[in-house]
Order: sequence, then structure tokens, then C-alpha cells
Amino acid sequence: MLYLVGLGLGDETDITLKGLEVVKKSARVYLEAYTSILLVDKSILESYYGREVILADREMVESSSDEILEGADAVDVAFLVVGDPFGATTHTDLVIRAREKGIPVRTVPNASILSAIGAAGLQLYHFGQTVSMVFFTDNWRPASFYDRIRENRSIGLHTLVLLDIKVKEQSMENLARGRKIYEPPRYMTVGQCAQQMLEIEEEKKEGVYGPESLAVGAARVGGETEKFVAGTLKELCDADEILGGPLHSLILLGTGTHELEHEYVREFALDKENWDRIWAENYQTKK
Amino acid sequence: MLYLVGLGLGDETDITLKGLEVVKKSARVYLEAYTSILLVDKSILESYYGREVILADREMVESSSDEILEGADAVDVAFLVVGDPFGATTHTDLVIRAREKGIPVRTVPNASILSAIGAAGLQLYHFGQTVSMVFFTDNWRPASFYDRIRENRSIGLHTLVLLDIKVKEQSMENLARGRKIYEPPRYMTVGQCAQQMLEIEEEKKEGVYGPESLAVGAARVGGETEKFVAGTLKELCDADEILGGPLHSLILLGTGTHELEHEYVREFALDKENWDRIWAENYQTKK
Repeated sequence: MLYLVGLGLGDETDITLKGLEVVKKSARVYLEAYTSILLVDKSILESYYGREVILADREMVESSSDEILEGADAVDVAFLVVGDPFGATTHTDLVIRAREKGIPVRTVPNASILSAIGAAGLQLYHFGQTVSMVFFTDNWRPASFYDRIRENRSIGLHTLVLLDIKVKEQSMENLARGRKIYEPPRYMTVGQCAQQMLEIEEEKKEGVYGPESLAVGAARVGGETEKFVAGTLKELCDADEILGGPLHSLILLGTGTHELEHEYVREFALDKENWDRIWAENYQTKK
Repeated sequence: MLYLVGLGLGDETDITLKGLEVVKKSARVYLEAYTSILLVDKSILESYYGREVILADREMVESSSDEILEGADAVDVAFLVVGDPFGATTHTDLVIRAREKGIPVRTVPNASILSAIGAAGLQLYHFGQTVSMVFFTDNWRPASFYDRIRENRSIGLHTLVLLDIKVKEQSMENLARGRKIYEPPRYMTVGQCAQQMLEIEEEKKEGVYGPESLAVGAARVGGETEKFVAGTLKELCDADEILGGPLHSLILLGTGTHELEHEYVREFALDKENWDRIWAENYQTKK
């Protein structure tokens, strides 16, 4: 049996009792280590589980999945995923490959950023499609998120923006020379995300959002040091210090915001007066 | 401290290690018992936790929350919620009332139907706003879901439909006579939901969806007996027997369905030939 086990969002104690039992009984335990991270190191997991944990990077999962699935028709294999196993496309793909080999699959769900973000006080019913923001480079500035946000906003909905992480990246030089030397991991901050969003609006000028648009920055959602900061996109460009370390996410408010949501989220506002003014002008419930 | 602890979706072993620790150390333990249910009885939870669990019905949570919050500035109180604590509006409200009393609040997240539904093979990135379907009566047929689905479909997105549950309901007669006698609980099935959806389309005739629209029926998501059935809305009207007992949910497919989603979900199709035909005609990726 192949088990996809969600680890939740915070630390080693966020695994479920059911998930822990699977880990303990499995012949091999993999940890998917490139779409998200826990706030603790692999060694902490290993000593908590009392098991060796094999790191599975993108290459292993996408190109060498046979290795992971090896013998899973006869023994149990646990594939651990931060958050919920179905948060990322790549895991659906692994299940399809297991199916093709006649390997039975079972999932142990857990908290995902897609639902835990409700802790910010915005109703999960009022979210549209989730978008991703990648690190821009000089010649790669993918902006498909802009149209997705427009679609959500056209029907009054909030947008959750998931922020890029780069782990096990090689520099162009090391890549060219075939040297397996990796850059330090990078995690996009709310400030970097807000900045990139404003740059794209600046280019497109279609008014999907702007410096005065309300948003919530979130850090370490679901962890003990979870932190939310609410403000305009412009204000959030400079709020990284208040938010602290990774992982960060951002919510862009929809215009159909309910009074209860407002009451909850304004607690996190950097500048409550400014927040209240903009909210009253542009965000009161329209649906 | 007030702790909101998510229990996940299946049975007693779906609580996280962190959540279990909170339950064990809390002075009082409440179980919110009206927005969703676990697949096991309260007595199973009590013996698993080694703790007494107090059932909190809608009346207690919405009108007598003082009782729940009593003393929580000095001792720990655990408020258990099936799924994730922020899946339902009512819990946001409880946090606001705790804040007003100066009671610190912490959340222990867990799997929610909003993310665990990803196990159906449809990408969570492609879902629009979630809607709820209530049991229609002769003179109450709220159809606001229809416009929400239209909005989602207008931008190609899937819609998750959460189905009504009725627990601790009184008959009109018992209510009028003040008799605290409760009807047996009722859980809406996929068949009932599909039927109600088609009735509303029949009335409105705006073509938001129809008998040939593709959908996925889901039962006991996240539990050991999780079951998915894919088909047209018409087919799903008669698939309750295959799906089995509660809880059920339904996903109405968006028109921007990705090939990988198709490959995954067609495994669940009642009539694969019919599914493939309709999918090829109306559902291939347009975005």
C-alpha cells in the first residue's frame, strides 16, 4: 500500500494519530521536500517518529517515482507531504502512476494552507481560485495571476496567493558546469509578493488592484508563532519584519467583504484608521 | 486559553498529536455537534481521549457561549470542531467573543472538506467559491447557490457543494408545544442534492448547468471508506446506494478541466463512455 500522509503546517506534533501509525508501520518513509516545508528539520521528525526519513526532491518524485513505488504492492510505503497530500498537482500524478502499477493507495489528510488560512478571519466561502506567485527574474515575470485575481474580484471574492519557495536550486554557473552545489533556500516574503503585484499593475494598468487595495499578510499559518498583518498592498511592502520568518502567504480582499470578516481582520491592521476608511469606501458587502 | 481544535474528517484517530495533548490538559472539553459530524460516536472519542466530552449544540454555542468561555482566562478550555475550526462562520464568532473578554485563543488546525476534497482528483487551484445546499421544504427553496455556481462556471471553475445536515431538529408540533423531543438526524445525499439542483435549473432555465453536466459525488471524504462516484447530474440522482452512508458532498465540474484531472476522475465514472463523450465536447481546458 502507498500511503500519502499529510503532516499539517507547523511542527512534528501536527501529524495525526492515524498518520503516525502509518509512519511507524511502513517499510520506507519518504518526505516530499520541495513544494512546502515544515517549521522544523528532518532530524526532528526522525527522532519523533523513531524512523529514518528519506528526502524526496523534485527529481526523485517526478523522474524516479519507480524507486518510491518499488515493492509497494507487497509492503507499506509512506510518502509524507507538508500540509494536505492533495495541495499540489505532483501528488495526484504519483497516485496515477501507482494505479498503473496496480498499487493500492490510501490518503491520510491533514490541515492545508487552503483551509487553515481561515484563521485570518476571512470566510473560506468567500475565496475564489487560489493563485501562485513565483520569484520574478530579469527576463521571467509570469503574470497569469493577474487575470485570475481579476476573475475573482469580478465576482467579489478573496484571493489566496501562495508564495514561491526555492530549495535545492543551482546557480546558472554551477548548472552549466554540472556541479551539484546548491544555493541557500529562498522563501518569498509578503513584502516581495506585494511589490511584484504592484509592479505588474503598474505595467498593465487595468486597475485589478492597486497600492490602496486591502490585503492580509500571513506568516507560519497553523504554527505556534502564526502571525497576521492587515494593510494596503503598499503598507505590506514594508511589513516583513513584523511578520517574521517563513512561510508567508497573502490574501487579497474581495469587494464583497462581510461585516463579521471586517471586525475580525481589522484587529491585525497596521493602521486601523486607514483600514476602516478604505474598507467603508470600497469593501462593504455587495452580495 | 481557549483552544479551537480541529478533529479532521474520519474517526477518533484523525486528531493531531498536538490536538490530543490539548484535550488531555484542558479543564473542560466541548464538542461542537451541529455543523458537521465525525463517523464515530462521542463515547468513542471519550474513551480514546480518556476525558469527558460535553456536546455543544447550536443553542449553546450561539446563545450560551459565556458558559463555554467561563474561566478560560485562567484555565484551558478545548472546543473541538469536526474538520478544521475555521470551516464554519460560527467559530469565528466565538473567537471574537473570547477576544472581547480578553481570553487568549489558539487554533489547532486539521483536515477540512475544503482541502480533503482534492482526493477526488480535481485540482484545488481550480475551485471557485464553495456553496451550501439545504433541504428544500414546500415553501422554502433557497436558491442563492445557483448564482454562485454561475459565477464560478463563468470563469471555468469547479464548485464544491456542501450538503445540509439536520441534527436535534424538532417537528413543528413539538416545537409549538415546547416539547424537547427531537427528530432523527438527517444528512443530505448526493442524489437529493443533484435532484434539487435540477429542480432549480428547471425553474430558472438559465442554463447554468443541466442533467448532462458532469459532477463528482463524494462520501465520507478522508475516512477509511471514502468513496467517489463521477457522472452526470442525472446519473448522480440515482447513485446514493453506491456511495453509501453520510456525509456526502458534490463537486460540479468547471469547464476549464485539465487533462490530468480528467484522467484521474474518470476512474470513478459510472459510465466511462458517456463521461468521455461529454468531457470531450464541453470540458476540455479552455484556460
